[in-house]
This record gives sequence, structure tokens and C-alpha cells, in this order.
Amino acid sequence: MQLTGEMLIGGAAVLGHDAEIQAINPATGETMQPAYPGGAGAEVERACALAWEAFDTYRALSLEERATFLETVAAEILELGDALVERACAESGLPRGRIEGERGRTVGQLRLFAQVVREGSWIGVRIDPALPDRKPMARVDLRQRQIPLGPVAVFGASNFPLAFSVAGGDTASALAAGCPVVVKAHSAHPGTSEMVGRAVQAAVRKCGLPEGVFSMLFGSGSKVGQALVADPRIKAVGFTGSRSGGTALMKTAAARPEPIPVYAEMSSINPVFLLPAALNKRAAEIGKSFVGSLTMGAGQFCTNPGLVLAVEGPDLDAFLASARTALEAAPASTMLTPGILKAYQEGVARLKGHADVEQVAEGQLCSGPTQGQAALFVTDAAKFMADVALEEEVFGAASLVIRCSDVATMKAVAEKLEGQLTATIQMEDGDVEHARALLPTLERRVGRILINGYPTGVEVSHAMVHGGPYPSTADGRSTSVGTLAIQRFLRPVCYQDFPEALLPEALRDSNPLGIWQRVEGELRRN
Amino acid sequence: MQLTGEMLIGGAAVLGHDAEIQAINPATGETMQPAYPGGAGAEVERACALAWEAFDTYRALSLEERATFLETVAAEILELGDALVERACAESGLPRGRIEGERGRTVGQLRLFAQVVREGSWIGVRIDPALPDRKPMARVDLRQRQIPLGPVAVFGASNFPLAFSVAGGDTASALAAGCPVVVKAHSAHPGTSEMVGRAVQAAVRKCGLPEGVFSMLFGSGSKVGQALVADPRIKAVGFTGSRSGGTALMKTAAARPEPIPVYAEMSSINPVFLLPAALNKRAAEIGKSFVGSLTMGAGQFCTNPGLVLAVEGPDLDAFLASARTALEAAPASTMLTPGILKAYQEGVARLKGHADVEQVAEGQLCSGPTQGQAALFVTDAAKFMADVALEEEVFGAASLVIRCSDVATMKAVAEKLEGQLTATIQMEDGDVEHARALLPTLERRVGRILINGYPTGVEVSHAMVHGGPYPSTADGRSTSVGTLAIQRFLRPVCYQDFPEALLPEALRDSNPLGIWQRVEGELRRN
Repeated sequence: MQLTGEMLIGGAAVLGHDAEIQAINPATGETMQPAYPGGAGAEVERACALAWEAFDTYRALSLEERATFLETVAAEILELGDALVERACAESGLPRGRIEGERGRTVGQLRLFAQVVREGSWIGVRIDPALPDRKPMARVDLRQRQIPLGPVAVFGASNFPLAFSVAGGDTASALAAGCPVVVKAHSAHPGTSEMVGRAVQAAVRKCGLPEGVFSMLFGSGSKVGQALVADPRIKAVGFTGSRSGGTALMKTAAARPEPIPVYAEMSSINPVFLLPAALNKRAAEIGKSFVGSLTMGAGQFCTNPGLVLAVEGPDLDAFLASARTALEAAPASTMLTPGILKAYQEGVARLKGHADVEQVAEGQLCSGPTQGQAALFVTDAAKFMADVALEEEVFGAASLVIRCSDVATMKAVAEKLEGQLTATIQMEDGDVEHARALLPTLERRVGRILINGYPTGVEVSHAMVHGGPYPSTADGRSTSVGTLAIQRFLRPVCYQDFPEALLPEALRDSNPLGIWQRVEGELRRN
Repeated sequence: MQLTGEMLIGGAAVLGHDAEIQAINPATGETMQPAYPGGAGAEVERACALAWEAFDTYRALSLEERATFLETVAAEILELGDALVERACAESGLPRGRIEGERGRTVGQLRLFAQVVREGSWIGVRIDPALPDRKPMARVDLRQRQIPLGPVAVFGASNFPLAFSVAGGDTASALAAGCPVVVKAHSAHPGTSEMVGRAVQAAVRKCGLPEGVFSMLFGSGSKVGQALVADPRIKAVGFTGSRSGGTALMKTAAARPEPIPVYAEMSSINPVFLLPAALNKRAAEIGKSFVGSLTMGAGQFCTNPGLVLAVEGPDLDAFLASARTALEAAPASTMLTPGILKAYQEGVARLKGHADVEQVAEGQLCSGPTQGQAALFVTDAAKFMADVALEEEVFGAASLVIRCSDVATMKAVAEKLEGQLTATIQMEDGDVEHARALLPTLERRVGRILINGYPTGVEVSHAMVHGGPYPSTADGRSTSVGTLAIQRFLRPVCYQDFPEALLPEALRDSNPLGIWQRVEGELRRN
């Protein structure tokens, strides 16, 4: 595919007129071609108008048609072949294996959502049949289903150029729900975005859908991003990025004449609790595997373990010694963008210069233009609790260990933490009571709790939660990974005393779709 | 029960120190005893501290214990006997039959939520078992459940002194979800609130629950209401009232260091579409039954039909003639409070004085101190669309008829309407294609669509939706009536690789609770 530097607005490809975006290959520092001139108000207007126009038609597709469309998007992405992998590697600095895996995940989640669409539980059918003879008053016939909210603005993330970008999780779940999508592509990987965007555009065309089902814009946060979120035809927002970026979108969305939901996945330091028996039995092993999780992908995961809590003493010292050894052997890794590297270096410098924080170890020195050096720090619970700045995420391979005087202090620190995507417990049988005591606090604070694992792997499945209380996300009632994500883009509508001719198929007594229906409060499928 | 004028904070009864609230019997104009001194910061602090303290214990109750508690609240309300009915009638001006019915609804919805709690689908169990042999990577064991958000602030509504007040729908659904509740009682019916509050307090005691599961405060919106919503231990808000009140709470909630969801049910004019064949066949009957819905309960329902759309011509004239006759015979009715009457009179005066609006009819003259006179107005589509003020809700028995040149114009007006709780279609077989064309617009605009009924009855059931896009509610993704309301107060948590000993019962393979579980994406219960 010849990249053109154009935005995709419905079925058209349009060159912008605003400031140009160009990708930088972070491994070489080279500027990549082509340039992507940004869009502005006119392009936002056109994309939103087309999305609105497409909405009623798109949401009225049969389950099979909608599922087939998602599968066609997946097939078109695979059709891009190795060129997509090469471009994504070059624009992100991520290794080929990672990008290939991410492509598999991207295609896999589109196919998984196709299954979810076909299965139909997301329609949330509820039927309370009329009771004409009820005393003292007859009951009317009431039937409920979930319908899509409307066009969704999706912001591509920097750290998953495929799986959380143009055709990533937010796009897949919004399209699955029946919502047209307008993507604001991330400026770090415009070429990858154009390729994937053209794949989605091709799928829209092949499936004969209204062109407005999908558009993709390039441009600045203020001219394109904020304008999208402010547009009255946009009814929800999906975002993965920084806290400042996410909260700015939340403000815009709340200030609209009609406020809309923002699903922003923002920041998390993902505390890891090393309980005493585990630390006693496996300090060296945990130190090593923890560093593996910390440095994976240059630490550029939302679920990177940025905080470790343990009781001070020889076992913790053994953990630190093992982590130090592993970290000192960890090669510097290319980070996604010069901007991300700079923010990482500033975060590390802040910790290095902090009077109450001690450096445990550093990774190997950098040898390329955009490389980040891993770092591990230590402080104690009282000092940590005395400075809220120590709780700020340092996006990259840096982590802070908190020495606690006892397990109760670990729990007390947990109780003061902000909302997080994940919390991890390393434990042995002897730690069960400690873990039990800690769990209610963690449930209130995080979206996913792991035992004896590391948070950096996020499975795309039915039970996954990639979400959590604010500020890990804007809205802790949801997840951005896994099939539950479809529910973010739905709302219930009740149909009272509808004649059969006007009743949506999903709500008919004969159940022609063969989906689960809750009848008088009882689930059934027949 | 001897009323004391006290607030209920956990197990205690506490007299406030702020400005006094006293109910006024709207039928007589008399001030009622006792006085209720308002609370302020200290009482909000104490109630929230107790609620937070109670949260982990309350949410850990078994399903049976939680359900029994809800049923005990219902029983304690019935125990109040006729004294409750008398006080509620006196404080609200509502007739005995209505208050008795409302008590039945209040008790009924507590019992219905008890059933919902026992049935357990609200826990939303999802299980993706470990796949240790999966290639290229093993899959971890992932299990998801919904947990309650935390303490909820509930604002009593004026127009349902039982069913949407201290132990009304918001309280019942929050308690069912596992959330402690702090109620801000409505100032219009403090005696009714004290009685019901003491019934809930007694149920908490009888069931041996932590006292903080329920508190109830009196006081001003600024000193108690806003302080409650701003308290960091409050995690969600339930409100039914005015748009100005609801949007003020939304602002406070969004400005918190941790923003929280606000479920505010605010305003709606509930358009009624009279399609041509129906109007041709039943103009006189529709005119009469429409006025019955309009004047019911002095028009003080969120779902009151405040807007009628029809094609101009002799059939619409016949409808207007019939409605005029019915309305002119409609007696004036006592409204809830002098303040509500004043706002109603101002709204009616605004329509009377509007150059583009014509009065069709007035109800009978008022004979009591707080009575409202019903009123019906007419304008045309172009004039209606030219002045957004004509779309403002006039809370009470007033409605505006829009003459449209054709059905397409009816649809065009619908497309411009703000979000609504309901829309109603009056139709005959000959109107099916018109109705079909109108439905996509209505689905996007409202929470409940009725055919050949009137919106003023709201059944409490599984399929009901009493919600809708902004500004009918703050959050169109939910309902405040019916069993789906429990989902407003829940969020998902994922448990990864948990040992059996630490796994919540709901998530175990053996399914000891016997509830529905979604295993690998498939629902099952065994």
C-alpha cells in the first residue's frame, strides 16, 4: 500500500490543511514519510455528519451482518501483510514479535466481538408480558432492549499501535455495539494508522455499509480531539493515554449542552504486594520475575508494576538484591517517542533527586537515540504517605519499593492509594489470612486483582477487567479490554404495548434471533 | 410514632442546629409540627463516616441476609400503619388512595429487589478458566463479578413522598446493590421522612447490620446536599427533581478530586404523537383520555404528557374540542407545595403571554390555598421550533399541542427535541408505516416508547425503563425504576488465578450460590 498522508472521511481520502504530523522512527531518530497534514473543524464536521447519517442504518443491521463486518475488518487487516508489521515496528520502536502478537490480538478481539454480537446477550432483552387480569390494575406489556448510544470518538493510544489504536479495543467494542466510529489517530504512528484505517474503510465498502460508519482524522488535540468530543453528534468517547489528556476530554464532555460519557483509561501504578511467606520462600525468584514484568516493552504498559509493598527485613533485602542483579543486566530499550522518553527521564530524575527516595539499581546504559534506562527505587511507608507526588505514574520501566513495618502498614498504604487498574499479591499458603484481610481494600481500589502473577499481560476474554476507579479510568463502571466493553456504548429502551409488526425482532415472544431473554425476571432461551 | 424532628445518623437520632424546616399542609395552608432543624457539615461527616465503616461488612452479607434486610424494611414500613398514610397525605396534599397505592409500590419494590438479590444475576459472574496448555501462551484463570460502588447519597423527591423518597426506588436499588445509603430528606415531607427513616433504622437494628448502612439528614441543599455529594466517601448519587437541582449536583460531582456518577432524573415533557388514522378514528376519545393523563395527580408526574403533536385539520380540531370539554370540567387540584404551585403558575403565565401560543382551555377555578388550574395550549410547528423556551417543562397539569402540516413535520420536531423519559404514539393499523418511520428518532431521544397508552403510569418491573437521554436524566445509560436500576451502583472486578480459599463464593466452579455464570462466554446455571 502506497501511503498518501490522507485522512479517511467516510469513503473519501482527504488531505488536511493544518500543521503536519510526521512519524519519527525512535530506533534511528529518522523522520518518516509521508507527512500527514492535520485536519480541523471542517473535517470534524464532515466526519460527524457522516457518522450521524450512518447511525440508524448501521444499528439496524442484522446480528449476522454486523458480525460479518467485524470479521471483514479483521481479514482486511491481515491482508495488509508484512508491510503493516514493518511500518508499525518502525513507527513504534517495538520489536517484530511484539507487533505480530499485537496484530493477532487486534484481529482476535474483532473476531471475539463478532461472536459476542451473534450471541446477542448484549441486547439485554427483558420481557414482562401484559397481565390484563391483574388486580387492582392490569399490567401493560413491557419489553426492554439495549440500543447503541450513537457515534463514538476513539482516540488511538501510543503504546498499542494496533490493539488500542485505529481498529483496537475501543473501536471494536463501539462497532460491535452498533456505534459508528470517528478515530483521532495518534500522531506517533500515522502510517500504521493510515494502513489500518484503509483496511476498515475497505471493509465498510465490501459490506455495503453507509460510508459514515468509520472515519479517521489526523490533527492536534485542540483542533481535532476537543472538537470531536464537543460535537453534538458524538455520544461517547473512548481514550487511552495520559491523565492530563483524559481529564481534559472529561471536562469538555461534561461542559457540553448534552454531557456524554468518557471512557478514558489514564494512569495506574499497579501495586504489587509481597506477603511475608512468599517473600521468605521466593525472594530471589520474585525479584527476577518482577524485573521481567517491569522492563517488558520498555515498561510502556498501563499495567506496568510501578509500586511494590513489602515488610522490611532480610527477606525484602534478598528481593532487592535479586531485583538489583536482574535490573542491572536489563538492556536499555527503545521507547515509543522522544516525548515519552523525555517524560520518563524527568520522572526518574524526580525520584533520583527526592530526599526521601533511594536508588536501588539502574538498567544498562542507553545506546540508541530514544532509549530508556530501567530504574528501581526504595523508600518507606511514612515517607511515601507524606508526599503524594511519589504516587504519580512514571510511564516506563521505573518502580518504587515501599518498606513497611508490618502487613498492617501495607494495608494502610493500600487504603490511601488512588484508584488503580490492577493490584498483585505474591503469596504462599501461610499468607492466606493476610491476603484475606487485604482483599476488601483492593476490591475498592482496583479493577483486577492477581495472585502470584504479574499485571503486564492483559488477556482479551469475557472475564477480563481493564478498568478501575478514578483516576486509573474516568469511569470505573466499565472495562476497555474484554467483551464486557461493549456495554459502555449501550443504553436501555423500553417498548410498551407494541404491536408485533413494530416490535424489534429481539423482543418478540417467538424469539426469532434465538437469544437469551429475561422473561418475568427469569433468563431463558428457546 | 411520636415525631421528634430529629435526623437519623446510624443508630442515633440527632437534632440539627441549622435553619428549621417545617412542612406545610398544602390543602389547608397550615404549618405542621414538629419543626426539623437542619443538619450541616458535622452531621454529613458523621453519616458518611458511618456509611464508609459499614460498607465492607454490608457488601459481604450473604444474598439471603441482604434480601431479608430489604424485606424487613418493607415490613417495618407497613408496621407504621395508617399514621404514615395520614401524615403523607397531609404533607403532600395527595389523596389517600394515591398514598396507599404508593405505599404498596414502595413495599413492592423493596420486595422485588429482594428477589433480584437472591436470583443473583446482578453479580454478573464471568469465568474464563485457565488454559495451561494453550499455545503460544498459557491462559491465566480469570473470573469477574460486579461489586457495589460504595456509599450512595439519595435525594428524596417531592412528588413521590414514599416511592421516590427515603425508602424509595433509589434507596432500594442502592441497598440491593450492597451500598450503604445516606438520604437527604425532602423538605416538603419531613414527618413522612422521619417515620420511614425510623422504619429503615429499625430494620437495620433487627437484622444486626452495622448502623452506618442507613442515615437520613434534613437541611439545605447547599449545607447538606452539596456537602454530601462532595464527600469523598460517597461514591454515587441518586436524585429526582428539577433540572437546576440535578445539574448543580452533576457539577459538584464532576469537580470532585474523584468524580462520581450522578443518576439525576430531571425533566421531561413526554411528547404524545397522534397519528392520522388514530386521530381520524378516535379524536374525541383520545382528547378525553389524554386530559385524564394530563390532570392525574395535579399533573405532578415526571412522565406527564406536556407536549402533543398532530397534523392540523378537522380531526385535530375534534381532538381539541374534546380535550377542551374534558379540561374545562377538570377540578383544580392541590399541588405538593406552595413553591411548586408558584413555578406552575409562572409557567402557565409564560405560555398565556406568549405571542405565538394560543390557549385552548382552562380547568376549573381554584378553591383551596395551593390549588393548580389545568391548562391546554396550542401553537404550530414553526413557532415551536423558533423558541426553545416552549420546550421547557411546566411541572403540573399544563400541555402544549403542536399543529404540524404533515407527519414528516411531526418527525422533524421530534428530531429536534431534547432527551425525554417517554414518547407516546396513538395509532391505528393505517398508521403503521408512519410509526415505523418515527421509531428510530424516538429510540434515540427517549427511554420508553408507548403505543396507544399514556405515559403517566410507571410499572415497577424487570423491563421498565424510567430514564432517557440528557436532560431527562443525567445519565441515559440507566433507569431509576425497575430492577435494572441495581446496575447503576455496581462495577466489575476481575480475580486472576485466585486459590479456592480466597475466591468469592459467586465465582467458584462448584457454584454454591446456584446463580447464572457466564463460562467461556456461555451462560449456564447448575
